[in-house]
Amino acid sequence: MSTGHREPNVVHLEPIALPEPKLDGGLSLGEAFRQRRTVREFSDEPLPPQLLGDLLWAACGVNRVNGPFGVSGRTAPSASNSQEVDVYVVLSAGAYLYDPTAHRLRPVAAGDHRRIALSARQGAGGSNAPARLVYVADLDKLEHTAGFDEPGLHDPEVEKSYFYVDTGLIAGNVYLFTASRGLAAWFHNCDRPALAAALALSERQRPLFGQTVGFPRTAATASKSPPSDYSS
Amino acid sequence: MSTGHREPNVVHLEPIALPEPKLDGGLSLGEAFRQRRTVREFSDEPLPPQLLGDLLWAACGVNRVNGPFGVSGRTAPSASNSQEVDVYVVLSAGAYLYDPTAHRLRPVAAGDHRRIALSARQGAGGSNAPARLVYVADLDKLEHTAGFDEPGLHDPEVEKSYFYVDTGLIAGNVYLFTASRGLAAWFHNCDRPALAAALALSERQRPLFGQTVGFPRTAATASKSPPSDYSS
Repeated sequence: MSTGHREPNVVHLEPIALPEPKLDGGLSLGEAFRQRRTVREFSDEPLPPQLLGDLLWAACGVNRVNGPFGVSGRTAPSASNSQEVDVYVVLSAGAYLYDPTAHRLRPVAAGDHRRIALSARQGAGGSNAPARLVYVADLDKLEHTAGFDEPGLHDPEVEKSYFYVDTGLIAGNVYLFTASRGLAAWFHNCDRPALAAALALSERQRPLFGQTVGFPRTAATASKSPPSDYSS
Repeated sequence: MSTGHREPNVVHLEPIALPEPKLDGGLSLGEAFRQRRTVREFSDEPLPPQLLGDLLWAACGVNRVNGPFGVSGRTAPSASNSQEVDVYVVLSAGAYLYDPTAHRLRPVAAGDHRRIALSARQGAGGSNAPARLVYVADLDKLEHTAGFDEPGLHDPEVEKSYFYVDTGLIAGNVYLFTASRGLAAWFHNCDRPALAAALALSERQRPLFGQTVGFPRTAATASKSPPSDYSS
């Protein structure tokens, strides 16, 4: 019997417990709307665990244990509360899956995958940012929802409309949270095939988009942003 | 020469100027995240103009005159800042197009079209609510963006991913705004063919989803919500 064997892609990666969310402080909702914008120039300063955890909770955290259809409720809604869009968190040390129920990060793949969380033709812009979120749709969660099992959940075009909308609902929360804390955020395409391989996704999972977050690069060191294929 | 001729579908409808947005007050951003949920039972009480205007500004209003690519910036981002998702506002008196630049409602179709802002098989739930937003993608705005004209803007599947995500980004703002003001909101499917006809949309415009907003029905008069094909 072999000893010490682990899945190769999670070797050396441990789960990360996130501190209990502290969402007080920061800007008001109205001021967050006023400050909301895309910022594509990042400092390489890491996000402290409290800030990263608060960001993820704001994105799609559990905001009530008893939500619709006997399932917990989230800050972001989803089709039939199927919660089909998972948020992967790509840090310099590795990639993790955000588990909203436990409010922790589960290790997925060791190594620095930040580059492929941006699409190939976009160059390396923002790869120094401390965190890239990757939105991944899980078709099984839509098709086997605990919620109202309506016909659209089994129609590929309707499924598409749902998981893209649901991605936007999460990404918008991230934009407002980052605006409220003076952070930079940039929603963008990603390298879908490379991510599917690196994150060992199943045939039923689809990487959709990425969103880079971090502290803004200071004016003194900022260069001009390149054209971007997404966001404003 | 005939006199007094108007487009039939806007007869008797006048533009509605919205009061300057007042986004102070209401809950903090953190508390809005905590309160965010779907509520499907509405009072038929109208939304005062200030509240309706604030809601629309929060949804996709102009939050900076000088945004990316020489275009104004919005509270909700969009692909290459093409601002391709228009918000139609369906009230009891008629349907209007929200014009974020002028912050006013342009008349589109007289009459009560609230019923078709919900999909046909969902019954009449929420049709008494004072306002239904309808999200309509304009492909011409994507394909002739003032922003960065990347290849994806001319690929139907990529366009789809953009306009659905961009719808979610706006709808999420609506959810947080309504949560912060104690309003009810429900994102849902809509009767796409009926809306395309009623709103006299072009071949390049696609109605995507609806979102009902209003005051919540009070507990004393509330009935049990029917199953819904969307949201949580």
